[in-house]
Amino acid sequence: MKNYEGMWKELGLDVELHKAILADLDKKFEAYVLSQKNRPGKMGYFDDVILGAHGARVAEIIDHKKRGGKFIGTFCIYVPEEIVLALDVIPVALCGGTALSIPYAERTFPRNICPLLKSTLGLSFSKTCAFAPIKDMAVGETTCDAKKKTWDFLSKKVNFHVMEVPQKKRDKDLELWRDEVVQFKERLEGLTGNKLDGEKLSEAVRLMNRKRSALARLHAFRKEALPPISGLDFLVVMQGALIDDTRRFWANLEDLNAELEDRVRKGHGVAGDRAKRLVVSGCPSVLGNWKLHHLLESSGAIVICDESCTGTRYFEHMVEEVQGGVDGQLLAIADRYMKIDCSCFSPNEERITNIVKLARDYKADGVVQYILQYCHTYNIEAIAVASALKKGGLPSLKIETDYSEEDAGQLRLRIEAFLESLEKHVKP
Amino acid sequence: MKNYEGMWKELGLDVELHKAILADLDKKFEAYVLSQKNRPGKMGYFDDVILGAHGARVAEIIDHKKRGGKFIGTFCIYVPEEIVLALDVIPVALCGGTALSIPYAERTFPRNICPLLKSTLGLSFSKTCAFAPIKDMAVGETTCDAKKKTWDFLSKKVNFHVMEVPQKKRDKDLELWRDEVVQFKERLEGLTGNKLDGEKLSEAVRLMNRKRSALARLHAFRKEALPPISGLDFLVVMQGALIDDTRRFWANLEDLNAELEDRVRKGHGVAGDRAKRLVVSGCPSVLGNWKLHHLLESSGAIVICDESCTGTRYFEHMVEEVQGGVDGQLLAIADRYMKIDCSCFSPNEERITNIVKLARDYKADGVVQYILQYCHTYNIEAIAVASALKKGGLPSLKIETDYSEEDAGQLRLRIEAFLESLEKHVKP
Repeated sequence: MKNYEGMWKELGLDVELHKAILADLDKKFEAYVLSQKNRPGKMGYFDDVILGAHGARVAEIIDHKKRGGKFIGTFCIYVPEEIVLALDVIPVALCGGTALSIPYAERTFPRNICPLLKSTLGLSFSKTCAFAPIKDMAVGETTCDAKKKTWDFLSKKVNFHVMEVPQKKRDKDLELWRDEVVQFKERLEGLTGNKLDGEKLSEAVRLMNRKRSALARLHAFRKEALPPISGLDFLVVMQGALIDDTRRFWANLEDLNAELEDRVRKGHGVAGDRAKRLVVSGCPSVLGNWKLHHLLESSGAIVICDESCTGTRYFEHMVEEVQGGVDGQLLAIADRYMKIDCSCFSPNEERITNIVKLARDYKADGVVQYILQYCHTYNIEAIAVASALKKGGLPSLKIETDYSEEDAGQLRLRIEAFLESLEKHVKP
Repeated sequence: MKNYEGMWKELGLDVELHKAILADLDKKFEAYVLSQKNRPGKMGYFDDVILGAHGARVAEIIDHKKRGGKFIGTFCIYVPEEIVLALDVIPVALCGGTALSIPYAERTFPRNICPLLKSTLGLSFSKTCAFAPIKDMAVGETTCDAKKKTWDFLSKKVNFHVMEVPQKKRDKDLELWRDEVVQFKERLEGLTGNKLDGEKLSEAVRLMNRKRSALARLHAFRKEALPPISGLDFLVVMQGALIDDTRRFWANLEDLNAELEDRVRKGHGVAGDRAKRLVVSGCPSVLGNWKLHHLLESSGAIVICDESCTGTRYFEHMVEEVQGGVDGQLLAIADRYMKIDCSCFSPNEERITNIVKLARDYKADGVVQYILQYCHTYNIEAIAVASALKKGGLPSLKIETDYSEEDAGQLRLRIEAFLESLEKHVKP
């Protein structure tokens, strides 16, 4: 792979620490992902997306900026990518998935906030995020207490925009959110100096819908009795979806889907038909974090459904394609994003119903609720989820963990015990 | 004191456990509060409010209900008491301040949520909250992740109303909040079967403003070089404010204020003039929780300002008295509550500016930031608060703790070291 050390130096990164973090990431990726047997050949592209995130992708964005384009960092799938893309702005999710940067966050921030946020902050504070120095703006939202208050802190230091995601889902909340989407558009127009063009917006809507459809198709292959792709590989694709060029990603995903269709036709699965089928539900696993999926699948299970922001939440629900002007299309965009069933909403019954439905549709043997440590909303909602699953005859296991490897042994014991208990489970 | 065992039994409480919790509360109250020297004589009334919370107050509410009145439980000072009182409904804050009930919450809820919420839930789950069985409704709000998601859980079990507190403070947020206040009124009208009366609302507004003015006056006495009341006693009054009958509380507070005025005239302080003057800023200390104030004052300091929901946040800002109808008065009520500078808002600069101002106005030697464990919003906002204080030449100490006594020794060491460091501090 190309050497990007010069670029990183020019960006003012701590090159040695950055190399150490990348080396750790590469090592984990090799041990957990590349070492899997029976991988689809077309995964090669997505492997490169992950391994090239801090190199090739950054270089590409620098080129884009040289041509006059802008680049924003995001932290949540509520940021409407259609608007971003239509204004020739590149969005990249800057969420951190490495434990190595966390100590740098903990020098300033509380220890007892979620590892994803600490990892993200740590990458920035330790000058090991190659995206940070080139971003024209960062976009946060009010989906959780810890992120919301972090934006207050960061807003004083960098160009920042915060979108208010309301806490309920009534008409007046939707109205507030629609206005947030319009304000976001205006902020981006200010950043780029360009007015949002109706044609370009329609094109971006179509492109994002295609990307979502392709991801939904990928996810649906996992319903098969012999899933043609592992949960880890699905996760790798999702992690790529949050950082890669949208059109190129989509085209490559179509290729992967074609390969998987062929596998399905031939009855070629990645795991035996005795592998326990698990839904992973809850918090996202962003780039660098393959911990839970690795533990589950190396214990003999197969993850066949991801109900998370690095899963269904990202691609469920299409944006309605609206004719005749920017305003109507913006409303349709706002309405689509408001359907995301994040645990930040009160109440959030749709999500609970949806998890039970997914578990049934995907013929799951059990559900693993994945809670990033100190994430209050998913952690408390887990009580209702477990209860609904139990009522539906579906066993579940809650795993609350951070990015460290210290609890891996203990988690493996719990996972093995859970998988064993599923033997006795009679499917509903 | 009267024996209420029969009443508790009738309410279906776990009488033995309830007695154990009350005995622990009484013991702490005696050791921390009653044992103080130089207490104002008029504190007797407020002592009785605390010690009678689960007995006399409950009996009084039962009588009120027998006469056709309603009773609601609250968990936050955003619930507009004016509307509640005007509809002849009694509001009582059901926030728990005891560690003894926490294990009962942890059987269902995550351990790593704040002790106040766990204590509250634990009292209810263990059948040791005498208010729970008699409440006609509970009113929650969306001020933090853990509470918000807890309301989802409780709403399925009891009559519950959730008010959406927005996350920002722009015009459209105020609009949303104003509508929440109107909806709350409608919900209470439904509960009582009565229409909100303009006269009664005006009367309730005047009464609440009087209560706030009296509390503000009480708080202002602490500006004196020789404060006539301890921080612990101030806290006892505030804890009473959240549960006692409004009119009676106000009348007795006027008496206390008269006594304190007399003390000030005579130069009669509760601590020597060498006691370090501290602001306590951050999370509330509700009934049963005297831990921090006791530690600070028994280490030789005096708390001269409370910037919290059991402090200034409760009584700052009056409701504008509006003539001519319920609608306009409701708007004015909504606007007053929206001025509360809870850390749930993003951004929340007013609070940070206010803390520095309070510390100066009250001639503080230092500020103690009090963070209930796992409270993300105050914990992260503490970074900006500490930084603003430092810039203003004001030393600060952050204490993050729960309700247990296990860390008391360690905290005392840190507090003593902090107080010692203040010796060297030159006042600005």
